[in-house]
Amino acid sequence: MTKPVCLVIGAGAGIGGNVAKKFALEGYHAVLARRSDEEGLHNLVAQITDAGGTASGQLLSATEDGAIEHFVNQVEEDIGPIDVAVYNLGAQIGNRALADTPHKTFELGWRMGCFGLYRLAYVLTPLMEQRGHGTILVTSATSAVRGNKGQHSHAAAMGGRRMLCQSLNAEFGPKGIHVAHILIDGAVDAPDTLGKMLGAEMFQKLRETRGGEHDGLMLPEKIAETYYHVARQHRSVWTHELDLRSFSDTAWWNHD
Amino acid sequence: MTKPVCLVIGAGAGIGGNVAKKFALEGYHAVLARRSDEEGLHNLVAQITDAGGTASGQLLSATEDGAIEHFVNQVEEDIGPIDVAVYNLGAQIGNRALADTPHKTFELGWRMGCFGLYRLAYVLTPLMEQRGHGTILVTSATSAVRGNKGQHSHAAAMGGRRMLCQSLNAEFGPKGIHVAHILIDGAVDAPDTLGKMLGAEMFQKLRETRGGEHDGLMLPEKIAETYYHVARQHRSVWTHELDLRSFSDTAWWNHD
Amino acid sequence: MTKPVCLVIGAGAGIGGNVAKKFALEGYHAVLARRSDEEGLHNLVAQITDAGGTASGQLLSATEDGAIEHFVNQVEEDIGPIDVAVYNLGAQIGNRALADTPHKTFELGWRMGCFGLYRLAYVLTPLMEQRGHGTILVTSATSAVRGNKGQHSHAAAMGGRRMLCQSLNAEFGPKGIHVAHILIDGAVDAPDTLGKMLGAEMFQKLRETRGGEHDGLMLPEKIAETYYHVARQHRSVWTHELDLRSFSDTAWWNHD
Amino acid sequence: MTKPVCLVIGAGAGIGGNVAKKFALEGYHAVLARRSDEEGLHNLVAQITDAGGTASGQLLSATEDGAIEHFVNQVEEDIGPIDVAVYNLGAQIGNRALADTPHKTFELGWRMGCFGLYRLAYVLTPLMEQRGHGTILVTSATSAVRGNKGQHSHAAAMGGRRMLCQSLNAEFGPKGIHVAHILIDGAVDAPDTLGKMLGAEMFQKLRETRGGEHDGLMLPEKIAETYYHVARQHRSVWTHELDLRSFSDTAWWNHD
Repeated sequence: MTKPVCLVIGAGAGIGGNVAKKFALEGYHAVLARRSDEEGLHNLVAQITDAGGTASGQLLSATEDGAIEHFVNQVEEDIGPIDVAVYNLGAQIGNRALADTPHKTFELGWRMGCFGLYRLAYVLTPLMEQRGHGTILVTSATSAVRGNKGQHSHAAAMGGRRMLCQSLNAEFGPKGIHVAHILIDGAVDAPDTLGKMLGAEMFQKLRETRGGEHDGLMLPEKIAETYYHVARQHRSVWTHELDLRSFSDTAWWNHD
Repeated sequence: MTKPVCLVIGAGAGIGGNVAKKFALEGYHAVLARRSDEEGLHNLVAQITDAGGTASGQLLSATEDGAIEHFVNQVEEDIGPIDVAVYNLGAQIGNRALADTPHKTFELGWRMGCFGLYRLAYVLTPLMEQRGHGTILVTSATSAVRGNKGQHSHAAAMGGRRMLCQSLNAEFGPKGIHVAHILIDGAVDAPDTLGKMLGAEMFQKLRETRGGEHDGLMLPEKIAETYYHVARQHRSVWTHELDLRSFSDTAWWNHD
Repeated sequence: MTKPVCLVIGAGAGIGGNVAKKFALEGYHAVLARRSDEEGLHNLVAQITDAGGTASGQLLSATEDGAIEHFVNQVEEDIGPIDVAVYNLGAQIGNRALADTPHKTFELGWRMGCFGLYRLAYVLTPLMEQRGHGTILVTSATSAVRGNKGQHSHAAAMGGRRMLCQSLNAEFGPKGIHVAHILIDGAVDAPDTLGKMLGAEMFQKLRETRGGEHDGLMLPEKIAETYYHVARQHRSVWTHELDLRSFSDTAWWNHD
Repeated sequence: MTKPVCLVIGAGAGIGGNVAKKFALEGYHAVLARRSDEEGLHNLVAQITDAGGTASGQLLSATEDGAIEHFVNQVEEDIGPIDVAVYNLGAQIGNRALADTPHKTFELGWRMGCFGLYRLAYVLTPLMEQRGHGTILVTSATSAVRGNKGQHSHAAAMGGRRMLCQSLNAEFGPKGIHVAHILIDGAVDAPDTLGKMLGAEMFQKLRETRGGEHDGLMLPEKIAETYYHVARQHRSVWTHELDLRSFSDTAWWNHD
């Protein structure tokens, strides 16, 4: 394959799927991976293909030993060199008191939020380094910069994720690998995550109140534009960290 | 005039001039203002016109009472509504011990670094608010997030600039005005500022060592791409703060 | 005089006055300066003297040209070497839209919030440097780290103040001068500032609701304990920045 | 026992042991836990007893399942209510490229740096909450706020630790439990950690160059003073985060 490959880990109908679409539209072959919902995955691939792009997809249990590693090697071998990798696994489990955050939950948060990114970088950076270039875009959350009560598992995982992005950037930037930490500071119009967390009825209500004209929900197809821009920045002007939120939302550091 | 207007305060041959060019290329009328060097200003305008864009320019002593205010009103009246304003005045004076930073110097730093942005926002936001949209892009520096020794004047001015960007964003974001704080964390390949500070010989040497293939200097025409992207973000996904540096440079928070 | 001198600029009945009392109790001669209310000033001095300490006081219009400079030199000459200086001038003017923040107001915020500290450091650090030691404790506010809407003047001033503390620390730390930025993240039980802002009735109500058993208001005599601790830290373990808030309050970075 | 208990996890001859000594001197019963070196542990306990304090010690493999939990319960039952807990486990392994940071190493960093604190809080906060008060002091490192190259494991662990401190503070502050994140930004004069990392000869050389008169090394008995101060702060004025470094050192955010 002569197309550069864009790999998306965590490719639901929100940010992940839309980023895959955007890169496919711009000439990348998109490889989509998600934990479950094979039908949803096929739909995303089909949408890309129907629009004239190329894509493939696979279910991936990212926290399993060796799964990310095997997947990356397989894509490199079967499809082509991964030019852009998007780490889009969330670790949000809603607000829970510490007493309601068992050891397994806290550990799982870390496995998805932080360890998985380390594993992706561990297997992928040697390949990118050999090629002299590559991009790793990491979706992040407000919990990476402040720990709210109820966010013990999520904040600890995301705080680790952010520092890891910095240490990766420090080691691999000069080797031509661009690592970016993209802080999503708001609710995304994403049926697969926010939609499921709220339930169909509440999600629809939220969309009606804050979506549409009001743009209170962040539109994932617009988020994808910024992911693409960051991936295409000239190497003399790389962004390592940026935030995204709706114009009508309050920034995480502000209070009303 | 039917073109939207992009106003650049601090339009030298580095970031400011290149941002003006980029917006002009994309269909804006660029209005360039700088303190001195009328010939340089005319050259920039001519380059834009020659490339098929439209632009106008004016010398502006931004720290003078009423100068920014008069200029903004005049542009709005004579040329058209300002859609994008770029505040690109620097306040860097090199490293100076506190004892070598007289009161006038410290105050001038604030007048250029912080007060000028307040004055621009004060005169421009009511107009943008009435129109329901507008963008203010603010060039910033590492001194906005940490105070190095020798940077007393610059850091105090830029720290104020950054907090002002946040308070402006908090008040005007929900009114459709996008304020972005763009942290330039490195040396820009800019003959009018870095070039003059270093002198022609050293600047050429720096360019030869770190520029070109090595991209150690940030290319201003590439920085302009990101300014343009931020200005065009959909209002459901606005970036308030981002950093830019060369791949080969050390981020401000890292040590070698 | 053989006692070391602790100078407090902004010595009202809240943090400033209580810090003066604490240092006087521990063997310093306290010099209190405030803009107005000579009677209040005399009361504070009398309280210190009655408790067996020594103190003197003076009205000081800190934003006037030369006032801080003259005051520092006079204290050094008439009373003795200033060992600890506390810069406790506030610049909070309540929440105001940008349109209700005139140029004079914005500039005054900077003169009190940022320029005054620069002036104090400019006149005092050469003296401290000669003596090989000294401490400058700077009261700061949440506005130094985030700009809320309505806080344009305050945030710009305090953001500058914070960066200036860092640049002063970077230049003067190795010369034995300890500069600390103390972030007061909450409402202080201070009749002269919060009390006057709210009015007697509302302030009393706030005290009844949040003070006393509930400690929702920060007790300034307890804040003074931490100021004293920081001033007495061994020079191998200096704190440059710390925050203070009530246990029952929400940290600035958290949302409920 | 009528003395309040101060529990130190990670009680070597540096910060941990000195904090234990300070609290014992001030009337606490100190309980010291460390992974290895039973003789060193006995020495610390003996030093405290000889000075007229009371203390007990135990070897503890903190990363083992159930070990922290069992230890906390045993102390509460056999000795008395834990009033202050100091989490002083480090996770620094020196600079290593990502390729030299195997999965086990990265995971162990997290188990010591982040998961252990979560486990301590999980078992201890319900007891403290019932008593209406308690203090958890967490030693932290510069890696909690920036990820240097070579610090992948450490930075990811410490970034998680810091966010966890914030989420714990947010949930438990209003319940009377004070959580503080103490950032040690420099080399500590600690034979058990820095000493072992450098080797006896280099450590002695470092002490001679930077210790003593020059105070370039942070003296752990002086660090302990600040730990004690934070633990004794009145609940209306709690510090959540502070930094400590030598006067002669460069702050992590500054460059020379």
